[in-house]
Formats: sequence, C-alpha cells, structure tokens
Amino acid sequence: MIKEYYGAETFILNKDFAYILVIGTTDVSLIPGLTIAGATPELTHFTPAADAEYVLLGKCKSINTIPVSPTGIPTPALLTRASLSFINPLKIVVNAGSRILPKIPYIDLQGEPGKDIRKQALSMEKVNNIIENSIKLGEELSNEYELIMIGESIPAGTTTAMATLLALGYDAMDKVSSASPDNPKELKRKVVEEALRNLPTDSLQRLAKVSDPVLLGVAGTSLGFKGKILLAGGTQMTAAAAIINEFDKNKLKDITIGTTKWIVEDKFADMLSLAKQVGVKVLASMLDLSISAYEGIRAYEKGYVKEGVGAGGSAIMALVRGVSNNTLVRKIDELYGELVGSNNLHI
Amino acid sequence: MIKEYYGAETFILNKDFAYILVIGTTDVSLIPGLTIAGATPELTHFTPAADAEYVLLGKCKSINTIPVSPTGIPTPALLTRASLSFINPLKIVVNAGSRILPKIPYIDLQGEPGKDIRKQALSMEKVNNIIENSIKLGEELSNEYELIMIGESIPAGTTTAMATLLALGYDAMDKVSSASPDNPKELKRKVVEEALRNLPTDSLQRLAKVSDPVLLGVAGTSLGFKGKILLAGGTQMTAAAAIINEFDKNKLKDITIGTTKWIVEDKFADMLSLAKQVGVKVLASMLDLSISAYEGIRAYEKGYVKEGVGAGGSAIMALVRGVSNNTLVRKIDELYGELVGSNNLHI
Repeated sequence: MIKEYYGAETFILNKDFAYILVIGTTDVSLIPGLTIAGATPELTHFTPAADAEYVLLGKCKSINTIPVSPTGIPTPALLTRASLSFINPLKIVVNAGSRILPKIPYIDLQGEPGKDIRKQALSMEKVNNIIENSIKLGEELSNEYELIMIGESIPAGTTTAMATLLALGYDAMDKVSSASPDNPKELKRKVVEEALRNLPTDSLQRLAKVSDPVLLGVAGTSLGFKGKILLAGGTQMTAAAAIINEFDKNKLKDITIGTTKWIVEDKFADMLSLAKQVGVKVLASMLDLSISAYEGIRAYEKGYVKEGVGAGGSAIMALVRGVSNNTLVRKIDELYGELVGSNNLHI
Repeated sequence: MIKEYYGAETFILNKDFAYILVIGTTDVSLIPGLTIAGATPELTHFTPAADAEYVLLGKCKSINTIPVSPTGIPTPALLTRASLSFINPLKIVVNAGSRILPKIPYIDLQGEPGKDIRKQALSMEKVNNIIENSIKLGEELSNEYELIMIGESIPAGTTTAMATLLALGYDAMDKVSSASPDNPKELKRKVVEEALRNLPTDSLQRLAKVSDPVLLGVAGTSLGFKGKILLAGGTQMTAAAAIINEFDKNKLKDITIGTTKWIVEDKFADMLSLAKQVGVKVLASMLDLSISAYEGIRAYEKGYVKEGVGAGGSAIMALVRGVSNNTLVRKIDELYGELVGSNNLHI
C-alpha cells in the first residue's frame, strides 16, 4: 500500500518523529483561476492558518469551517489529522510568512508573506531570516529526533515551485501538479514565464525573486536537521529538495518525499521526472478513498486536491505503523462527519 | 548537591526532557532602581530576547554581548547554557510578550508585552490568547515528553510575581527575591501596593491587572502538559504555581520548582515560605561558583543575580546526570572566557 521509487525505503520511518507543518502565503494565489485551495482567491490566504488550526485543534478559528475548494472539496488537513490521530506525534506549526496568522501556538521564522513572483517574491533580508531561523530550528530538533516529517500549506505553491525549479535549472515546465483535476497549465506557464524574465545570477537572489516563504522554510529546516527527513508533499517538495541540494550536495541521501498516489499518477504533471532530475527518493501512499461514505472525500479519487498539509506523508506514517486502509478511511469519514454535522459543507 | 524541600524528589528528573524558555517584558522594569537585569532600565527590555538568543546560539543578536547587570555581572543564561551543554535537550523559546523579539525561531503565544501594573498590565484578550495558546503548547509537548523544564526571562518579574501572589491572597509582601544583593523592597512594595488598589474580583481579571505575560505563559504550558514539570526559577515560580493552582487544584502534585541555593538562602526574601503557602515542592542546586576564575561569576556567591533563564533547574538537571560541580564551573568559565575574550565585559 506504499509504492517506492528511486530506492526509497519505508523502514527508516519506524522511528519516533515530529510533524512539522510549514505555512505561508504567496500573492500568486490571488490570481483568479490559478488555485482551488480556498473557496475564492481571497480566501486562499486563510487556508494555511486554518489548515494549521485544524491539524492542531480539530477545528478552525480563523475561518468558520475547514478550508474547501470552490466546489466544497475539503482540505487535505482532514486526511492528515486522521492519519496522525493513530500516532500522536508532537506537531509543530511553523510560520514562514502567512498573511493570516493561525490562532494557535506556532514557531515564527520572521519571514514575510510571498508577494507576486512576477515582481519580487521576497526581500533578501526576509529570505535570510527564514533560512537562518529554519536551519536553527532543524538543528534544535536534532537534539530530540532522528526523524522528522515536514508538510506544507501554501495555496498556489505548485506555481512558485515550478518557477523555483526552472530558476534552478531543472526541466520543470508543465510538470508540477495542481489541486484541481483541470491543471490550469497555460495560466501557470504565463505567470512563471513572466517571473523568470531578468533573473539575477545568484541563486539566493533567484529564490528571493520567484520562490515562496514555505519552500525556503522547508529547505532550511531540512538543512539544519541531522537525521532522516520525510518531505510530506507533492511536486512542491521536489522544489524544496532542489533548494536543499543547492546548498548541500550531500543532504538528499537523508531525504525522501512522501506523497500520494494522486500525485505520482497525475497525468497532467510529472512528479517522478522532477524527483529523478533533482535526485530525491519518493514514497507514495496508495490510500484508496473510493470506499468513503462522502462524495467530498471520494472526490480525491477523481483528482481533486490530491495532496497538501502533509496528507500523503501522514498516511504513509500511519500505514507503516499497521493502520489499514479501511481503518484510516473510517477515521477520515468520522472527522468529516463531525464537520458536516455542524456546518454547511458540500458533501 | 541538591537540596530537597516539601517532599521534592530528584528521581523524576531522570527522563528525556525539553527545555522551554518563556520570555516577555513588563514595563515595571523601566522604573529606575527596581531591577538590575540589564545595564540600564531601557536595556532590561532587550534582556529576554538576548537571553534566549544566547541559550540557543551561544551568542546574542539583539545586543552586542550577553545581558549584564549595571556593574557587569553576566546573565544566568550563561549558567543555563553551560548546564544544558552536557544534556543537549530540545530547547524551545516561547514568546509570551516581549517588546524586543529574539532573532531566533520562537513559538509565539500571541500575547503582548506587560504594561505598568499600577495601571493595567494586560488586556483580557491577550490574557486569553496567552493562556489558550500555552495550554495547547503544553498539550502538544505531552505527545513527546513525560517531563519538561520551564524557565523564564523577564526583568522585574519578581515585582509582578509579588503583586500576583498578593492578588491571589497569599502572604507575599517583601518575600520575593531580587537580582540585586540589595533587594529594593521599599520601592517594590510601593509599586505593588499601588497596583493592588481597586482590584477586580474575578481572578483572571486580577491577573490581567497585576501579572505579566511570562507568568501566564508558564502557568498555561504547565496546565496543558500531562507529565512532570520542573519550574526552573526562583520566587517568580511560586507565583506561576499559584496561578496553576487557581485553575487546577490537582496539578501541583506533578510540579516541582527547581532553583538555586542563592534563592532559598536569600535572607532578604522567603522562597520557602512562599512555596509552602502555595503548596509546591522545591529543589535547590547547591552549585558553588566560588571556585570560578572570574569575579563576574563568583559574584553570584555574593547574592548577585541568583537565578533566571532556568539556571537553577538546568544545574539540577546536569547534577542529577552526574556532572560534577567542578566540571560545571569549568564549563561556565569556558563559556564566559569566550565572551570576555571578544568583548569588554567587566570581569
């Protein structure tokens, strides 16, 4: 129920671990049509804070219910919380730069929200803050853990990931996934091509121009951590891995991407090509949500949402620990049922 | 080398633990003559951030060197870093409300800096933020740890502690310690008496009036945590324990204060009376700094500084793990020597 690519192995995951959720926003998500990680473009800026609140508290505080797509498909934070409920790891929310701050305790990297990559995503000062502070965070976590899992929440993060991969020299055009079954490739390409004009030569300055706070926070935490790392996310995590490799050529041996089958099987993207180019191992949870009682959950099997908030990696962690597909889906349905019972969620 | 009071036992400390440093400021520290936890009243507001930076990084970023008293006695963060260097626990800095933010990754409780307790220390909104978020933090830490140690850094914190204890009905007047060998008791009493006028009846509102963000953050983290807790600090921690007891009458059985001999033997205060009144156990490190090569360190034996940043609790943790007094003092001298070598510190 877990597929392995490029030499990835699951046995390293049988250790006590911490779940790190790096959140942030990019103004790219405000471009209409680019992302469905929020009911409207403006609401996408609430999604990371609300995701973090839901994973930690089981309810959201920054918005009334959990984040949903425009057609009401629920956030993958639901899958993450369900999977982690069988493990109960320490969960740490890390704010790399979110316009909306979650109403929970979180670690602040003293970054800033990502601005439009067609102009300039981040100031060099904030890039340095995010990287320095996240490296230190990773170092500290090494005092307790030999394994961490890092998830992300940043709407439109696949677009900034594509820009980042291209800026670092990878063949990434049209290869990143989308939370939508209809990947808005032309729009993404147009935004990214504009962002890549007149790139500086220095790679840190390139990242400041076209990247986002979350990619930098994920990369920095990984660079500082001394043990094994599961990067829990989709094509975005190949961009994080590319940044890691840019600063430490010896680090990817300790890193595996953990994602979902909906990402690796996505016909409108090419996760495995990106991972191969960057040189990072991949695990994919083969979680089958077609047996869910809810249409909103079964929609994942039709290519909606696919990944986010560390959903794939969290499912892998649960499956590795002997939780069955049935048990996990029952838990997801139970959590979703609680929300549907108390809110007007589309089901 | 560790003294036990009121049934305190050291065997509970032989577990993997996290070191939590709660920082914040109170404008009470700006009153001239009240605290020596900073070279000038204004600089006291940099002390918590600089303490946190020093413990995590081994150097300060918010100020050029480590915090010192007006006569150059170094911060107890030095003792803390030395003690923890033998253990390497995960260190988590928690900002409950500091005017100066440390340039390191820290957990934010979404509190606010404490204002003058003669007017109103904190808004109820921020009191609720600090308590809710720190309870959640404590709960999360329970997923990984059965033991945590909580230290504090807040100049003039003994004054707000005295006000807090009195507001909660304890006989605390003149019983709190001071970082100075000459405890400015009359000034403290005057400030506290003014703060206690026209107190509201509700205990949370009383705390909002005369307390500080750090006491609330320490109490909340303790209330949320499910295992054993070492409150690493002096008379301030009796106030934190009093707040804990106000909200959960069954919690103090899991809590021990870990402090220094300079606190329990302080003739100008009465730590043990306060602990007895509140009903909290106490351990005191009998660390002997008279063998230090530096006058600035030996000054602790003359009643300077005494405690802070979890110095007493950290020494206890090191001593319990078999580190000798000699080894610990050598480490303190080594760290201080590095600083003295590169800065104009008074020695």
